Amino acid sequence: MSEILDLVTVISRLLKAENILLLCHKNPDGDTIGSAAALYHVLKGLGKTVAVTCSDEIPARYDYMEIGMYDGSFEPRYIVAVDVAGIQLFGDPVSQYADRVDLCIDHHPSNGGYADAMLLDGEAAATAELLYSLFESMDVSITPLIANCLYTGLATDTGCFKFANTTAKTHLVAARLIEAGADLVKLNNILFESKSRSRLEIERIALESLEYHFDGACAIISLTKEQIERTGVEPLDLEGITSLPRMIEGVRVGITLRQQPTGSYKVSVRTEVGVDAAQICAHLGGGGHKQAAGCEILGSMENAKAALLSEVERALCKES
Amino acid sequence: MSEILDLVTVISRLLKAENILLLCHKNPDGDTIGSAAALYHVLKGLGKTVAVTCSDEIPARYDYMEIGMYDGSFEPRYIVAVDVAGIQLFGDPVSQYADRVDLCIDHHPSNGGYADAMLLDGEAAATAELLYSLFESMDVSITPLIANCLYTGLATDTGCFKFANTTAKTHLVAARLIEAGADLVKLNNILFESKSRSRLEIERIALESLEYHFDGACAIISLTKEQIERTGVEPLDLEGITSLPRMIEGVRVGITLRQQPTGSYKVSVRTEVGVDAAQICAHLGGGGHKQAAGCEILGSMENAKAALLSEVERALCKES
Repeated sequence: MSEILDLVTVISRLLKAENILLLCHKNPDGDTIGSAAALYHVLKGLGKTVAVTCSDEIPARYDYMEIGMYDGSFEPRYIVAVDVAGIQLFGDPVSQYADRVDLCIDHHPSNGGYADAMLLDGEAAATAELLYSLFESMDVSITPLIANCLYTGLATDTGCFKFANTTAKTHLVAARLIEAGADLVKLNNILFESKSRSRLEIERIALESLEYHFDGACAIISLTKEQIERTGVEPLDLEGITSLPRMIEGVRVGITLRQQPTGSYKVSVRTEVGVDAAQICAHLGGGGHKQAAGCEILGSMENAKAALLSEVERALCKES
Repeated sequence: MSEILDLVTVISRLLKAENILLLCHKNPDGDTIGSAAALYHVLKGLGKTVAVTCSDEIPARYDYMEIGMYDGSFEPRYIVAVDVAGIQLFGDPVSQYADRVDLCIDHHPSNGGYADAMLLDGEAAATAELLYSLFESMDVSITPLIANCLYTGLATDTGCFKFANTTAKTHLVAARLIEAGADLVKLNNILFESKSRSRLEIERIALESLEYHFDGACAIISLTKEQIERTGVEPLDLEGITSLPRMIEGVRVGITLRQQPTGSYKVSVRTEVGVDAAQICAHLGGGGHKQAAGCEILGSMENAKAALLSEVERALCKES
């Protein structure tokens, strides 16, 4: 298990460190990238040799963070994982550093404690929120660039202050970052007001397939593997579709079927409070949380739907 | 013109007032309703006789604000318009009070000054943000119910802290409202994670009609009056569609055509910075702002599109 550090100890270790390598998680999101970028700029400002690495490419929309990626030009002597809850999330080739991480800075309560030492705040909405507190304690001057990086982490991990992890502290940090020069018009535009053509095309197909059952209490969308392949939609965009059916007024159980390359159906079930998604999926060999669960069903689309609807009916009856 | 009041004067007038009627604007949104509701609860807490009125029905999703609507049971002696920028926005029957408004509390810089007196802050992201400052000066205790009402105004007028009107102050007020007990999980769910069946149906039809021009720099969606009528979509939901084409990656000019009951086409043009939407529309007899403008075109859908595309081509050439 990791040694749990307080802010003061983290600061003293960072100030002593040289040749620092910052690790992001694979399939990088705004928080792992924004947090690593912010820390990169702060450490660079302190005259350190520092770089960031990630197993997947950083999406071009994050170019404004001006991250210095690791190019092998120095031998890492102090390794910091940022927003990485477990070693399985490093991916290759970053996993080569998994057993020699000196410090992990994270906000996931599930963090396995793989690093030698850890700065963890499970209450923080984002790792960027925790980093803001660290920088405040370090008396670092937050430049507009650093503010942009931290705002990116904060805003993306909270769905722009919409998700349940958002707290008063989250908004207070957002206020400070705007005062420090975060360009929230530009950032919100890049992060939230933009959809790919393939995402819109898969949305159109999904809406096309939309069916209501049980007087509108259940909505199902279904996508065949041909449709998914034809649009060329990215995995993250496809994942986003699964929240669509539950958003509809009156819908208590929202179901998305996505046919896999193998032909089977990957099923995502989202429910309102009072209807147990995990139970619906458990009867079909899957599982998950009370409001979000999943399973995989073989056979035809019609059979998959019939099996699901019978479980949904049971769950709705139990509830009312 | 209205007498411009400071917070202290507004407080003294509200404390002296009796039989207070609060006016919302027609097609009520979260800010006019949330602000009127918050003021209603504060004044009620001070022992006042007070009620709210609006020319249109308050949508059921706002029921959690527990607003006391005006039922004629008292004769209004002090009339306050909340978030109403001009008398044309009262609608009937509320416009009967238009020439005897004692106080207008608003954040629209364009407010015409129709009321006897005015508390105006054109920098505030929402009237709810301004009201928070008023309540703070009044030393009012913000109950969770009042916090919910103000949060509703703040969050809806900023697209959940996403729009350009959001400031550090907006986030600071949001933080205070959460500390005061605003139930942001419930509210964000109601306000942002819910879509009507008719809204989804009109989105499907809009995506169906989506066309790209000029190498994807211009996207057009078009809706006939039959399609609009058939879905029974509410005006606000229909309005929401106009932001869709501009959201697409690579699109610099997003255009929405909605056929009116009379047969003409209402055109909404949204552009990225650098392309002048107002100029595109000006050539077609319309106008507006640089990034959001509109016009009305008679004739067939094909002619309307051709006229628009010729203006868009001119605007894109001018820019590049």
